[in-house]
Amino acid sequence: MNKVTVGVIGAGRIGKLHINNLNRNNNVRIKMVSDLFADKLQKWFEDSGVEKITKEYNDILNDEEIDTVFICSPTNTHATLIKEAAAKGKNIFCEKPISFSDKETLEAYKAIEEAGVKFQVGFNRRFDKNFAEIRNRIEQNKIGDVHILKITSRDPNPPHLDYIQASGGLFFDMTIHDFDMARYLAGSEVVEVSAQAANLVDPEIGKRGDIDTAIVTLKFENGALGVIDNSREAVYGYDQRIEVFGNSGALVADNEAPTNLKYYHNNAVQTDSPHHFFLERYNESFITETEQFVEDILNGDETKVVFKDGLMAQRIAQAAMESYQKNKPVKVNNEIR
Amino acid sequence: MNKVTVGVIGAGRIGKLHINNLNRNNNVRIKMVSDLFADKLQKWFEDSGVEKITKEYNDILNDEEIDTVFICSPTNTHATLIKEAAAKGKNIFCEKPISFSDKETLEAYKAIEEAGVKFQVGFNRRFDKNFAEIRNRIEQNKIGDVHILKITSRDPNPPHLDYIQASGGLFFDMTIHDFDMARYLAGSEVVEVSAQAANLVDPEIGKRGDIDTAIVTLKFENGALGVIDNSREAVYGYDQRIEVFGNSGALVADNEAPTNLKYYHNNAVQTDSPHHFFLERYNESFITETEQFVEDILNGDETKVVFKDGLMAQRIAQAAMESYQKNKPVKVNNEIR
Amino acid sequence: MNKVTVGVIGAGRIGKLHINNLNRNNNVRIKMVSDLFADKLQKWFEDSGVEKITKEYNDILNDEEIDTVFICSPTNTHATLIKEAAAKGKNIFCEKPISFSDKETLEAYKAIEEAGVKFQVGFNRRFDKNFAEIRNRIEQNKIGDVHILKITSRDPNPPHLDYIQASGGLFFDMTIHDFDMARYLAGSEVVEVSAQAANLVDPEIGKRGDIDTAIVTLKFENGALGVIDNSREAVYGYDQRIEVFGNSGALVADNEAPTNLKYYHNNAVQTDSPHHFFLERYNESFITETEQFVEDILNGDETKVVFKDGLMAQRIAQAAMESYQKNKPVKVNNEIR
Amino acid sequence: MNKVTVGVIGAGRIGKLHINNLNRNNNVRIKMVSDLFADKLQKWFEDSGVEKITKEYNDILNDEEIDTVFICSPTNTHATLIKEAAAKGKNIFCEKPISFSDKETLEAYKAIEEAGVKFQVGFNRRFDKNFAEIRNRIEQNKIGDVHILKITSRDPNPPHLDYIQASGGLFFDMTIHDFDMARYLAGSEVVEVSAQAANLVDPEIGKRGDIDTAIVTLKFENGALGVIDNSREAVYGYDQRIEVFGNSGALVADNEAPTNLKYYHNNAVQTDSPHHFFLERYNESFITETEQFVEDILNGDETKVVFKDGLMAQRIAQAAMESYQKNKPVKVNNEIR
Repeated sequence: MNKVTVGVIGAGRIGKLHINNLNRNNNVRIKMVSDLFADKLQKWFEDSGVEKITKEYNDILNDEEIDTVFICSPTNTHATLIKEAAAKGKNIFCEKPISFSDKETLEAYKAIEEAGVKFQVGFNRRFDKNFAEIRNRIEQNKIGDVHILKITSRDPNPPHLDYIQASGGLFFDMTIHDFDMARYLAGSEVVEVSAQAANLVDPEIGKRGDIDTAIVTLKFENGALGVIDNSREAVYGYDQRIEVFGNSGALVADNEAPTNLKYYHNNAVQTDSPHHFFLERYNESFITETEQFVEDILNGDETKVVFKDGLMAQRIAQAAMESYQKNKPVKVNNEIR
Repeated sequence: MNKVTVGVIGAGRIGKLHINNLNRNNNVRIKMVSDLFADKLQKWFEDSGVEKITKEYNDILNDEEIDTVFICSPTNTHATLIKEAAAKGKNIFCEKPISFSDKETLEAYKAIEEAGVKFQVGFNRRFDKNFAEIRNRIEQNKIGDVHILKITSRDPNPPHLDYIQASGGLFFDMTIHDFDMARYLAGSEVVEVSAQAANLVDPEIGKRGDIDTAIVTLKFENGALGVIDNSREAVYGYDQRIEVFGNSGALVADNEAPTNLKYYHNNAVQTDSPHHFFLERYNESFITETEQFVEDILNGDETKVVFKDGLMAQRIAQAAMESYQKNKPVKVNNEIR
Repeated sequence: MNKVTVGVIGAGRIGKLHINNLNRNNNVRIKMVSDLFADKLQKWFEDSGVEKITKEYNDILNDEEIDTVFICSPTNTHATLIKEAAAKGKNIFCEKPISFSDKETLEAYKAIEEAGVKFQVGFNRRFDKNFAEIRNRIEQNKIGDVHILKITSRDPNPPHLDYIQASGGLFFDMTIHDFDMARYLAGSEVVEVSAQAANLVDPEIGKRGDIDTAIVTLKFENGALGVIDNSREAVYGYDQRIEVFGNSGALVADNEAPTNLKYYHNNAVQTDSPHHFFLERYNESFITETEQFVEDILNGDETKVVFKDGLMAQRIAQAAMESYQKNKPVKVNNEIR
Repeated sequence: MNKVTVGVIGAGRIGKLHINNLNRNNNVRIKMVSDLFADKLQKWFEDSGVEKITKEYNDILNDEEIDTVFICSPTNTHATLIKEAAAKGKNIFCEKPISFSDKETLEAYKAIEEAGVKFQVGFNRRFDKNFAEIRNRIEQNKIGDVHILKITSRDPNPPHLDYIQASGGLFFDMTIHDFDMARYLAGSEVVEVSAQAANLVDPEIGKRGDIDTAIVTLKFENGALGVIDNSREAVYGYDQRIEVFGNSGALVADNEAPTNLKYYHNNAVQTDSPHHFFLERYNESFITETEQFVEDILNGDETKVVFKDGLMAQRIAQAAMESYQKNKPVKVNNEIR
């Protein structure tokens, strides 16, 4: 097995996370990282295990040794970077969402298709052991036909208000993971979305034009119904639960917590709160997602989260937004064009 | 404390259940039961603890000793019986729903108001220890303001197809309990309903014009969102779970089962399936609901489930049906007129 | 089915409990209750549903209508009362333990045998739905041969120091229920006992010559091993758990609590503490134990907890005490002589 | 921070495990591994990340670059190797138990003390996140004084009969981990042991002079009581549970399993069986134990599991064996001499 030589564009929180995980992989060499604020990253860089740091992402795209690019920059740069990296023949791992615009995403798709490079979008939760096992068991027909799919997804606290404005809104920033999970587990496309939402957590979020609480109902092509509930603030931690109900059984994934201890004391029996947030909760899934991507590149296999997965999650988010704004169900286009 | 003297109209499954529970109450005398098929009930009657059985419900209404009537006959008789019983000054316990028609229910309401008699509608689940404790803790501000309310309510198997046609449909027959529970726990009226539904369990149900799988989203006056998911067939038993999420915590009620045993064996760790159906699951709540009703009559207190509760649950069911048929959100009228 | 006519000797906490439960049974008439402090019980008596109250237990024994006696007086009176009641041909329900002395218990046994009356000792926990179901499943061979049996049994707080001195000590007063449960579930006699104990909860208990913390290991005739751990004070409530491990599986019964709610808040996920104490925890088992006794009398069946069960639990308690005092394993005599 | 240069003596299952984990540590260089069957290990060696393989452990001891030795050979070689490695000034990580003989272990202890090298014994379970957190919370006084400590420790199936004969018996081979855990959690020495045991799993084990089922009661210096139950065969997997009960609360660690899924189906609600065996269950603790050891060497800190921990666990095992054989409690010597 050869090595994959990686360049990482963007060394923010998620970029650093991937670098850290790629470092543990004996089949990976991280040759370069680019970041607009490379100056301020000097200290981090020294212990990072990365060979070179640059301000200029083109240094990565122009480096012929680098065969694979991780796009971890802000969403509004993704589509352009995909097109440019594809043109250089690089395999691409891109964080979610691909873009906020159907047009941009379809252009990026065309570029990938023409270049014939590997592409994976960062829906890491598919690699969570509990959720992946739900999918396995559905495929093994353990619960029969899926009738109802339920996802609870609540953040421990809202992001900075600045972030909210750049995020594309709740459906694009947060629910998009749940939309992907819904498609992944239902094994069927979403054909219609109906979203109810509210601004209950913090009025400042409303002033920025966003919502913080939502219930989104999905209709799948195979007839199943789905529902996602979101909140930007669960005081007890990161709440990530999934339930799939079929005509011969049901599967439920509960939260994960730091320990499994039961603490009996004066007033109650306590267990740990769920993990604080996604870095703790999905730590292993982030490791597995890049391991799998590297393995697929080396083996010439199809990646496990393809471009269409990015496109469709984004379209469902768009439909949810429209449904919320018009207060009516909205259809989802499932064709790649 | 004096005794309450009861007449029971209708000795089907639910009528017999109430008779059985009332029998355990030292403050109750069951003087008479009426049923169209009284002839076939002779054997049951002998061990029933009831003093007299008749085919004619007017025997009950005309009996001056009887101060309280339990209406356990089919739904289409409820409104008429309420009016007649109120006119005779009887206190009334009526099974849900009050009727399928807003007009009839409002007429029955007027009769109750004019007569000034006690009235309780049979939303027994309010008396379940788990659900009642959720309400208590919400009132004690344990979870702050309610943001999201979730009810899972699935029957173990569908009723006979004949029953389905007379039932008023899923929303009137099954979800109505969940609509009441939603209002009870949210402590706020439902102002809008959005229903998605399907016929996935049995095509015969669809042929009778009904659905068997549904997700209903609710908007409450206080801004909270709610969602109910229903199925007519959960192969693992009667699935009755509730979750209320507020801005300072969440409360979750899980299913109840025959025992709490964990059974470790070759392939898995097993716990009991949920109780088979509502008679097993809500046994205690049925007892408490009539005990409380009798106590309220004897103490001259307000009953714990009033006429408006019956009316509103019915209106939400109507709105859900309309929402499903027109595939759009529907507003709910909250005024008693 | 005829009725059983009952007299209750001793109207303390447990006597009142049985009276209350017997009152719900349509097949029981409670004709008389005797108590040394009958004068002080006048108010309770008026609402008790009992026909007559007396200071003199002989009024009960001499009443020819009374066919069944409940002995709920202090332990040091049990053996004498059994002998006298048996001589009068009364069926007997006797609280545990039968006595503190093997000799007295064997004399009482002889009296029962000669009189041929029904006898049941008050090991109510056998009628708990969880524990009874463990026994059922063992009999259905769900876990194969029993290898290890574990009982955790801890009180929420120690009894009054006065009570402790009259109680016969921890093994006779508290562990005796666990000894019976061990025999019941193992389906085999205990042949050797090894007790380790300490005075850790309250030094005053030690000054009265008793212990408050214990671990007792049992060897059964069928080769299985058992262990019981006790404490007089669990700050989190009444801790009653059982685990039976066999060569093809294991069964575990957890505590029961007032509700099944999970409460997610700032610092933890909480569930209810176990029930406060035995009245709450074993409420249903007390009802079932007397219902079953009455049914067995009316049907002429063998009672479900026989005299030998009382005798053996007492002998294991004696062996445990001796083992603790001599710090060595002690054999248990399993023959009734 | 410098690197630790390691030699590993013995490349059986546990040796390979440590090599694998050490490989992930950037502060470790594995220079050499010795094994009597080095010839047969050539293929494994090629992918092992180890620089050199040899049949002769003296190659390791004589290599001046190697500063740290992992002793993973059979128990009967441990004491000798410790003495020889200490004489060469190597830091030592030694698998448990140190030896089967008090005399040999004390000699090894003297060698370590004289050489002043770092020493850690392989009680990996101390590094399990659940058990370590119990210890943390006890130290934070979350449960007050420890009164009762309970350890359930059952293997999924018995080892080969050959292994059993070389293992030193159940108490030395299996319970020794539990003896260490008991001392670790109680924070107090064991002063007396009382063991009951049986041969219930497989008569062939009995023929080899060993037992397969045991209940061992411990008395601690601080007055607390402890109990361990063991079986060589739990058909449902590796059963590792711990409970510590104190005068102001209790802490319970349950089994860990591959996923947290609940599977509702026709007959029951299922969760995963516990992990299959120690490699799966204690995977993370093995990683942490060597990371911590390496960190302590590099920082010049005391190791987290010291020689006395190895000595005392071994002495408790000896006392348990004697207690079982003589059927009486046996005192434990807690002085290092």
